[in-house]
Amino acid sequence: MRDLAEILESFKTGATNLNDAVVEIGDSFFRDLGHSTLDSDRVRRNGSAEVIYGEHKTPQQIIDLVSALKEQGQNILITRVSQDIHVAVSSVIPDSVYYEDARLISFVQEQQPQVDTTIAVITAGTSDMQVAEEAARTAEFLGNRVDRINDVGVAGLHRLLARIEQIRTARVIIVVAGMEGALPSVVGGLVDKPVIAVPTSIGYGAAFSGIAALLGMLNSCASGVSVVNIDNGFGAAYMANMINRL
Amino acid sequence: MRDLAEILESFKTGATNLNDAVVEIGDSFFRDLGHSTLDSDRVRRNGSAEVIYGEHKTPQQIIDLVSALKEQGQNILITRVSQDIHVAVSSVIPDSVYYEDARLISFVQEQQPQVDTTIAVITAGTSDMQVAEEAARTAEFLGNRVDRINDVGVAGLHRLLARIEQIRTARVIIVVAGMEGALPSVVGGLVDKPVIAVPTSIGYGAAFSGIAALLGMLNSCASGVSVVNIDNGFGAAYMANMINRL
Amino acid sequence: MRDLAEILESFKTGATNLNDAVVEIGDSFFRDLGHSTLDSDRVRRNGSAEVIYGEHKTPQQIIDLVSALKEQGQNILITRVSQDIHVAVSSVIPDSVYYEDARLISFVQEQQPQVDTTIAVITAGTSDMQVAEEAARTAEFLGNRVDRINDVGVAGLHRLLARIEQIRTARVIIVVAGMEGALPSVVGGLVDKPVIAVPTSIGYGAAFSGIAALLGMLNSCASGVSVVNIDNGFGAAYMANMINRL
Amino acid sequence: MRDLAEILESFKTGATNLNDAVVEIGDSFFRDLGHSTLDSDRVRRNGSAEVIYGEHKTPQQIIDLVSALKEQGQNILITRVSQDIHVAVSSVIPDSVYYEDARLISFVQEQQPQVDTTIAVITAGTSDMQVAEEAARTAEFLGNRVDRINDVGVAGLHRLLARIEQIRTARVIIVVAGMEGALPSVVGGLVDKPVIAVPTSIGYGAAFSGIAALLGMLNSCASGVSVVNIDNGFGAAYMANMINRL
Amino acid sequence: MRDLAEILESFKTGATNLNDAVVEIGDSFFRDLGHSTLDSDRVRRNGSAEVIYGEHKTPQQIIDLVSALKEQGQNILITRVSQDIHVAVSSVIPDSVYYEDARLISFVQEQQPQVDTTIAVITAGTSDMQVAEEAARTAEFLGNRVDRINDVGVAGLHRLLARIEQIRTARVIIVVAGMEGALPSVVGGLVDKPVIAVPTSIGYGAAFSGIAALLGMLNSCASGVSVVNIDNGFGAAYMANMINRL
Amino acid sequence: MRDLAEILESFKTGATNLNDAVVEIGDSFFRDLGHSTLDSDRVRRNGSAEVIYGEHKTPQQIIDLVSALKEQGQNILITRVSQDIHVAVSSVIPDSVYYEDARLISFVQEQQPQVDTTIAVITAGTSDMQVAEEAARTAEFLGNRVDRINDVGVAGLHRLLARIEQIRTARVIIVVAGMEGALPSVVGGLVDKPVIAVPTSIGYGAAFSGIAALLGMLNSCASGVSVVNIDNGFGAAYMANMINRL
Amino acid sequence: MRDLAEILESFKTGATNLNDAVVEIGDSFFRDLGHSTLDSDRVRRNGSAEVIYGEHKTPQQIIDLVSALKEQGQNILITRVSQDIHVAVSSVIPDSVYYEDARLISFVQEQQPQVDTTIAVITAGTSDMQVAEEAARTAEFLGNRVDRINDVGVAGLHRLLARIEQIRTARVIIVVAGMEGALPSVVGGLVDKPVIAVPTSIGYGAAFSGIAALLGMLNSCASGVSVVNIDNGFGAAYMANMINRL
Amino acid sequence: MRDLAEILESFKTGATNLNDAVVEIGDSFFRDLGHSTLDSDRVRRNGSAEVIYGEHKTPQQIIDLVSALKEQGQNILITRVSQDIHVAVSSVIPDSVYYEDARLISFVQEQQPQVDTTIAVITAGTSDMQVAEEAARTAEFLGNRVDRINDVGVAGLHRLLARIEQIRTARVIIVVAGMEGALPSVVGGLVDKPVIAVPTSIGYGAAFSGIAALLGMLNSCASGVSVVNIDNGFGAAYMANMINRL
Repeated sequence: MRDLAEILESFKTGATNLNDAVVEIGDSFFRDLGHSTLDSDRVRRNGSAEVIYGEHKTPQQIIDLVSALKEQGQNILITRVSQDIHVAVSSVIPDSVYYEDARLISFVQEQQPQVDTTIAVITAGTSDMQVAEEAARTAEFLGNRVDRINDVGVAGLHRLLARIEQIRTARVIIVVAGMEGALPSVVGGLVDKPVIAVPTSIGYGAAFSGIAALLGMLNSCASGVSVVNIDNGFGAAYMANMINRL
Repeated sequence: MRDLAEILESFKTGATNLNDAVVEIGDSFFRDLGHSTLDSDRVRRNGSAEVIYGEHKTPQQIIDLVSALKEQGQNILITRVSQDIHVAVSSVIPDSVYYEDARLISFVQEQQPQVDTTIAVITAGTSDMQVAEEAARTAEFLGNRVDRINDVGVAGLHRLLARIEQIRTARVIIVVAGMEGALPSVVGGLVDKPVIAVPTSIGYGAAFSGIAALLGMLNSCASGVSVVNIDNGFGAAYMANMINRL
Repeated sequence: MRDLAEILESFKTGATNLNDAVVEIGDSFFRDLGHSTLDSDRVRRNGSAEVIYGEHKTPQQIIDLVSALKEQGQNILITRVSQDIHVAVSSVIPDSVYYEDARLISFVQEQQPQVDTTIAVITAGTSDMQVAEEAARTAEFLGNRVDRINDVGVAGLHRLLARIEQIRTARVIIVVAGMEGALPSVVGGLVDKPVIAVPTSIGYGAAFSGIAALLGMLNSCASGVSVVNIDNGFGAAYMANMINRL
Repeated sequence: MRDLAEILESFKTGATNLNDAVVEIGDSFFRDLGHSTLDSDRVRRNGSAEVIYGEHKTPQQIIDLVSALKEQGQNILITRVSQDIHVAVSSVIPDSVYYEDARLISFVQEQQPQVDTTIAVITAGTSDMQVAEEAARTAEFLGNRVDRINDVGVAGLHRLLARIEQIRTARVIIVVAGMEGALPSVVGGLVDKPVIAVPTSIGYGAAFSGIAALLGMLNSCASGVSVVNIDNGFGAAYMANMINRL
Repeated sequence: MRDLAEILESFKTGATNLNDAVVEIGDSFFRDLGHSTLDSDRVRRNGSAEVIYGEHKTPQQIIDLVSALKEQGQNILITRVSQDIHVAVSSVIPDSVYYEDARLISFVQEQQPQVDTTIAVITAGTSDMQVAEEAARTAEFLGNRVDRINDVGVAGLHRLLARIEQIRTARVIIVVAGMEGALPSVVGGLVDKPVIAVPTSIGYGAAFSGIAALLGMLNSCASGVSVVNIDNGFGAAYMANMINRL
Repeated sequence: MRDLAEILESFKTGATNLNDAVVEIGDSFFRDLGHSTLDSDRVRRNGSAEVIYGEHKTPQQIIDLVSALKEQGQNILITRVSQDIHVAVSSVIPDSVYYEDARLISFVQEQQPQVDTTIAVITAGTSDMQVAEEAARTAEFLGNRVDRINDVGVAGLHRLLARIEQIRTARVIIVVAGMEGALPSVVGGLVDKPVIAVPTSIGYGAAFSGIAALLGMLNSCASGVSVVNIDNGFGAAYMANMINRL
Repeated sequence: MRDLAEILESFKTGATNLNDAVVEIGDSFFRDLGHSTLDSDRVRRNGSAEVIYGEHKTPQQIIDLVSALKEQGQNILITRVSQDIHVAVSSVIPDSVYYEDARLISFVQEQQPQVDTTIAVITAGTSDMQVAEEAARTAEFLGNRVDRINDVGVAGLHRLLARIEQIRTARVIIVVAGMEGALPSVVGGLVDKPVIAVPTSIGYGAAFSGIAALLGMLNSCASGVSVVNIDNGFGAAYMANMINRL
Repeated sequence: MRDLAEILESFKTGATNLNDAVVEIGDSFFRDLGHSTLDSDRVRRNGSAEVIYGEHKTPQQIIDLVSALKEQGQNILITRVSQDIHVAVSSVIPDSVYYEDARLISFVQEQQPQVDTTIAVITAGTSDMQVAEEAARTAEFLGNRVDRINDVGVAGLHRLLARIEQIRTARVIIVVAGMEGALPSVVGGLVDKPVIAVPTSIGYGAAFSGIAALLGMLNSCASGVSVVNIDNGFGAAYMANMINRL
């Protein structure tokens, strides 16, 4: 996607005519697809392209969105999609990749500059991995190095303590936990880096689909912990990427 | 459906006999179908015919209701129904129309007088469209002009601002949003027309199937915003129609 | 408060110098009071001046706000304040009026054009009156005629039915109810005008400070009912005023 | 099932031997089926036999229970069961009847004495009928006459008022309603008989699967209304039968 | 208060003139006190006079209501009032009685016919007594005999079992319990009379001001139990009186 | 208090006459104080005397209860009482002791046999101490040795780890924590003794008066943790005493 | 699995070489399987091996875990798994057993020392049996004797009272109940042993998937009752085993 | 406070004797005050000293803590305290400062190195200022520059847009909002810096003491937003400081 200066330059030289310039300038801000209004301006404003939240969208709506993004030369990330959606997307972007463990589709047209520092992604239990992988893959898509440490919940503390020095080398730490969601408090008390806590819907009964973990994390007695929505691996990674790039 | 005066006139002239007149007068108020008590008096009392809430009803119950309404010459709108129900309804009303994007069946026997002014139906995201279409189609069924503006949520504010003048030309504004439900507050702060906010069940985790959006809208810091039930596109349109006809 | 055109005219003639014009133009949009950012542009944008939500504000903050509004020649309404706050406000606006039954302070500098049609304000019970009076006084402040009908809850239906013709003469109907909040449904089924439902926190036990009434109203089986926040008489009146002025 | 006196008499005459008498006396209080402990003493204690709550039970468990009850000569009622369960039950009780509209299986071995007075079962909407039929069929099973009045919700009040005299002839009134659950309040204000309110899970969004209706009924401004669990048609009928037999 | 027939007779004989008759007939249905609409028709419709819910009402509003009721010769019951309100009421009805343990004011002008059968009022704990006394005093006000049994909660079952025969002599049983609210289930399993369960707000922590008890009672595994609002001793007694008078 | 055998012996010898024996035997099971039914049989049945839950009780009710318990020679514990109640109690039991930090009154007439093993009472934060002291004092009253360890919450893990060997010497462990309530999970993962978790209402915002801690503890990923009500230090100690005496 | 001393001895004798010793010592604390971090140290720390919570895990993850545990010679218990998972597990442990009524897989390599005293597992209703069997089978797996008593809920109290002496012979009592969850209070009031209460999700409507039962148990008026998560039969048994082994 | 190396050096030189060295080394990790266990190791581990959460603590407990911290030469911050607590604290630290608008006490012994980049603290409304000041003062205490922008909620969008360039100069952005909590979403969509959202308890009715704002923020449609507890200005500032120092 050409930015405003490039379009104007091109128009001045005559390489782009008036009509095309008008449309392209408009498109550089947003593009009306009827069912959707693609926010083309996000790279300039927020530092990265719009990510498609795939849940609740029809295959056709997703195809329209990825086609428009592809045309603009943007990198594409689609979250919360099944293999079926990837089949549909492949019809317009054959090179897109589906990460089943993270339920993501990714397609990189222009490689992001890599960040040297690392984001740690830690899970309390094996069952939290889908959310953690959504976070890890998103962070990698956005150009970060990721260090994964799984199943180190507080019921077997030595598993965490054995790896705490490794965790301390990260610049930002994402902690993913369901059930009582206690891990971010323990990690937060052991490091001097920002911790982003992701409650998951793992558990049963009074876990209430992640409410117990969410409340636990919001009330963390450790400082330096902030929280995103239940199962929102993507959001945690996006925030971590912002911090890691400062 | 003849009104009370017409029945009495017809009885006086002898065109209608006593028995028929008694039944017809009774029917002009309500009609007992066993499982349902059709409210035939709604046009006189509320300005429009009873609308059938299709969910939880059996195909046979719906067929009985539409048959009775059709016989009375009333316009028919059935909400929250699948394609299957339309197949059943078509057996008694072959000309009825099914709007899949809105999950509505509509059948117009007598054209409503059209209103000149417009109702705007705005969505925060593409996924809110089913609810928005329920609103838009209902408003059109009731004789209103509708202006649809989709996917202009607050995370990309310029998409909304670019169309705010268009929105200001409407007489009533319906704003449909899930997740945090912030769009009605922002729209409400930019216009001098009544805003009817519709929370949707779109989202996950702490969206709690629309509770987050509902609470957001009820606590709107903008004045001139009132709220209907989660996913209640029909109710918003009905209210908007009432206001638009004042 | 002079509008933008007036300021520019005055500047052109020299009656206002450059510095004063710059400040006044800025102030016509908003005015930074440190703790508050007064929205001076609301009349143009929303049709009426900013109303001060008095709860949680210190007396000094309120005094600063009313002083600024008074200077701009705007009408002033302060909601949810005790008599004590009125004593403080009187020090800068001796002519302001305190309505104890509604917990409002009002001060009118420029009379609003009156609307001919009426807003009905109906309560289910005597205890709902404080909220109803907040609605009624606000509607009157905004230039509407108000018709009050109190204590006509559904447990004694004849009290409502006896006055339903009176209610039908209103252009907009505000229904205020606590406990089970059933009154808006019953009224909504009997009229062809928009009904704005206000749940109140009146009740005990499973009334849950207005939640029961709020849910009842959101799920109203009558169409043409929309809802505002619990105890939000002001919001209902503001919405009703917008509709009544269409 | 023989009562204690009959067993002792039979033992005294030698018609029943010691071992059999011991077992039969034990069984007249309860019977241990391993997975279940059948309460054989309920007729004496509570006035009617144990009713089987069918949900969550396996077909085999239900067959064991009905076999034991049949052997004791008791009347059998099984609630919340599908047609499939009836097929299984029919293998041991071919004459049992399945009421699909109420999801009940019934089998009467000994006719209950009929009560002369009537129980009215009223619904707010057509969709509330399954719960209402559970109530009506249960009341009939227990020997009551039932008067059904459907779809007279408060949004079309004349439908209710037209039948209020009929309702007043009942000795106990069961009112079944979903959504905002306002009907019991209105009925309760019009009669001098006890009203048993049954909230249903009918509705969507902020109906919260019957919570809105439940809260509405618990907070009824009419006196003489008490409430049972959401969708508990059986419980309402059982209570109504108790009252009707006083 | 004269009923309609008496007024008409008196008018016919000339003892009452036209104007007075019109006012008196109107008043026999309801009386508009501005803040309240007194329902004068309740004795005819519901079998007993309107009871004043005292909470949230100002002393003046209560004085207006009792004055009107006294003038009509009706018996007066005011619930949820402090001693202070009684002082105010005494200024117009010196003979009224205040029951501190029940927070009720009562004034009997015309003795109700007494019912021979008894209502049992049972508490789980000593702390539930205020609610139980509201029930007991109300039942007595309405002409019933009351049998009080206190502090027989399920943690010491023999206390209940020792008095179960006494309880079985009642015609209706009110069971008042806070905390887990288990007592109605146990009582309901031991009797063949209708049980009205009253959850109280007694308890702490996860008692959630009566929610635990309310849910416990709504889910009672015993049949023949229905429930009223948390702390609603009055409502339970009113219902029990209706049943006791059948 | 004499047990049944002692009373019968005494009656046989003539030391106790018939009337006194009847009363004393009755009293040995329960004693009706009107407002309360004292459970005199608890020592035999449950192993310890009834404890008085002081909240919501009037001073007179408490005096009646302690007088009866004292007369029976039982040890007395009253929970959740202020200094004022102790003043009242002192009028009948001058030797009773008030523990302000635990809000308990205690009076020991007959020393309990001491248990050799220890109960550890651990708090996450200083603010949890009132609940912890209620537990510790109750455990001591019941004859246990208590080891107190305060303010070792998970945000500073080394504080806990430094004392874990001391904790492991206890036979039962009570862990008291507010906010996110993570401490029981961490302790539970480090010991092989039963852990009783007590959530406290300490915290603010999304701590929801102890709900966050309660949910955290119910969802503990460590095994061997069970939970009592929010702030229920007494209940935890009672359970711990039962276990410690096995 | 060899403990630390055995490994060191073996290394000293040369039976184990350096590399193998390093790996084996590491493994004796935890073992990193990538998706999981097996806690090999639990027997030493908590007294029993890690139990696999099967829900939410893929078949492959479970196979990896059981393979590692088997290799270490540990006993294996997998909870909340379907028959399908057992088929997968059988491929690596053909001798493992699937308990359908408890949804558990168990495999014992080294018999636990049996405890002489008994754990009673009691259900309120037949439908609570799946949770109860999870508890009973877990307790047996851990080396306890279990006494099962089913369907003795409080609505038919004699069923419980007839077996209370049997219950009193147990050393720990697990009470499993859904709906209003009243059984633990009644049992707790009749015994002097610790009661572990397990709420189940059995019920409908206001049972709210076990919340009613959970709250009932947390607010138990009987002392000596503590609570685990909804449907957490495993957790109750684990706690009971710890207590039974004291 | 000397760190470990300094103590050892001093011991080696003989400047510190053995006993003192042992105590000092112990104290450098934590210090047992009986009611509290001061975490002396936090600077090393987390980068800043322990902050005292003042709510729920007695004056004496706070005095003990500040005395210990002062002795160690640490900077002191006490949150959520009234003026009264400051009077008590002043007795031991006369130079401590009380910030009434933030309810904080601060005492700086050793100036923190200042960070060059800025933290923006933005409020939606004037009433959110107490929480915002807690954030701002904390950030300043920790050595950050703070830019305050008040009362720029979404209902008057131009107030925010006019200052968006100023906001974009910050490195981290704290957004404080009550009611519907929409401001973080709007800000988040306009910047490329991490946004920390703080919901406040400001509002009424369905604001539910901050739940509406909390849910709104957790469901933000803008990326790069994470959330802390309701009213937790301190936590937001602590997190922002960590990020700002990266």
